[in-house]
Amino acid sequence: MCYGAIEAGGTKFVCAVADENLKIIKKVQIPTTSPQETFKQIFSFFNAYDLKAIGIGSFGPIGTNPNQDNYGYILATPKKGWTNFDFLGTLKKRYDIPVVWTTDVNAAAYGELLMGAAQGKTSCLYLTVGTGIGGGVIMDGQIFQGIASPEMGHIYVKRHPQDEYEGICPYHHDCLEGLAAGPSLEARAGIKGQDLPIDHPVWDIQAYYIAQALMTYTLTLSPEVIVLGGGVMNQDHLLRKIRQEFTTQMAGYVETPDVEEYIVRWGLPNKSGIIGSLLLAQTIS
Amino acid sequence: MCYGAIEAGGTKFVCAVADENLKIIKKVQIPTTSPQETFKQIFSFFNAYDLKAIGIGSFGPIGTNPNQDNYGYILATPKKGWTNFDFLGTLKKRYDIPVVWTTDVNAAAYGELLMGAAQGKTSCLYLTVGTGIGGGVIMDGQIFQGIASPEMGHIYVKRHPQDEYEGICPYHHDCLEGLAAGPSLEARAGIKGQDLPIDHPVWDIQAYYIAQALMTYTLTLSPEVIVLGGGVMNQDHLLRKIRQEFTTQMAGYVETPDVEEYIVRWGLPNKSGIIGSLLLAQTIS
Repeated sequence: MCYGAIEAGGTKFVCAVADENLKIIKKVQIPTTSPQETFKQIFSFFNAYDLKAIGIGSFGPIGTNPNQDNYGYILATPKKGWTNFDFLGTLKKRYDIPVVWTTDVNAAAYGELLMGAAQGKTSCLYLTVGTGIGGGVIMDGQIFQGIASPEMGHIYVKRHPQDEYEGICPYHHDCLEGLAAGPSLEARAGIKGQDLPIDHPVWDIQAYYIAQALMTYTLTLSPEVIVLGGGVMNQDHLLRKIRQEFTTQMAGYVETPDVEEYIVRWGLPNKSGIIGSLLLAQTIS
Repeated sequence: MCYGAIEAGGTKFVCAVADENLKIIKKVQIPTTSPQETFKQIFSFFNAYDLKAIGIGSFGPIGTNPNQDNYGYILATPKKGWTNFDFLGTLKKRYDIPVVWTTDVNAAAYGELLMGAAQGKTSCLYLTVGTGIGGGVIMDGQIFQGIASPEMGHIYVKRHPQDEYEGICPYHHDCLEGLAAGPSLEARAGIKGQDLPIDHPVWDIQAYYIAQALMTYTLTLSPEVIVLGGGVMNQDHLLRKIRQEFTTQMAGYVETPDVEEYIVRWGLPNKSGIIGSLLLAQTIS
């Protein structure tokens, strides 16, 4: 008997199988093509194992309210062929076992809480900054969600005084994701993020927006720790700038733990999501 | 046997006593002076009753984490004499009965959920817009709080394109409270809020900021319903403008219930807080 996990992304799916101690037995990457083709490969991977339960962390937006008809579905997504796809139903039809269904960022937050940078806490917020920006939240050791899966990367932000970039979000133009995700860095500077020199002024602008978002999350959700992950966070200097900006913008108004302990880098780089999904599978079996 | 409740405000305290069916037996208003003087009057009111439990909704910021030394205290407040005052301890010393301690806005949210505009729901967000802006949240029928009492009135906001007002918050200048609480209306227009004509452009600016905050709360907390209260919300036309702006700014990105049902006016005008405090007293006795 073993646990299965799927980290479903817009570019690739990661599928893994682990033993009862959560030691990973096998892991594969499947390119995200059509739902039919992708699921054919998913089934062909999992069919070799006697699964006890599966945990899924999926790209979104997704239906997370069990009282609604769209529960388990991928909702409106620019990813061709996936809008209104019954992800959970398709899986449950093939495997008659317990399945945990949540967002990719919630799964990552759960992974970071139990085995990553938020170990020992009962709550955490995980924010990924990459091609897009998304957040997941655990409160009292449980996935936190309201009536819809939160899309906290799309909050509006106060403008940096030196920033005149119009923003890149197709829905909101200059929301957080529109102003601070990876593509905005490149659009402002004309250089890819990973090639931008450390002293490029674009980093100050990005730190300003990320820090502001962390302040908003602190004032609304008040988690014990904030864990930052995703491609952009591979830049060491950025974390320092974000912590400085957070302190400046909060202006001492609400007490948080020391910023070095409150805002931290992921403890399971590129693995939070799949490990979190395995841990979630374990909770229901 | 009866229930006691205190709604503690910076200007006045409301104290009430209700019977086992929560019918209010007596209610008094006490001006907020020094802690010593104010509590002398509180004791003199409650001493006449055989109380089973007390619910408190207090102005803040307050210590709400039972694991911290400042639990039950008023924290840094501009209100003279109240910073670091042990509110809960002072009350518990006099009355050896169960006490529920939370923020004024959490108590109001609880009142609105059980007996006001959010009846029948299991979650709601209550936002008061008056001299200041504050929010309280109930999730799964329980007060929602992280490690600190959230101060969601102080989130930063994207500027309205026609607004050049610098903002009035002593900590953050142009945060939501600094740009959209009552005093900011008056400062922009030179006329008191209640005397401003309906077609004054300042209302558009205010609706823009309040709606934006509601979008942020939706994207982070995702409650079933948002209840608006406080002095500024006595303006009928403002609620309409806020709903319109909310729809525009969200741009269809996240599904919410119909905006007429999702963003509503308080059901217990000026009473949500004291009724919520009584209901909270009932929960622990």
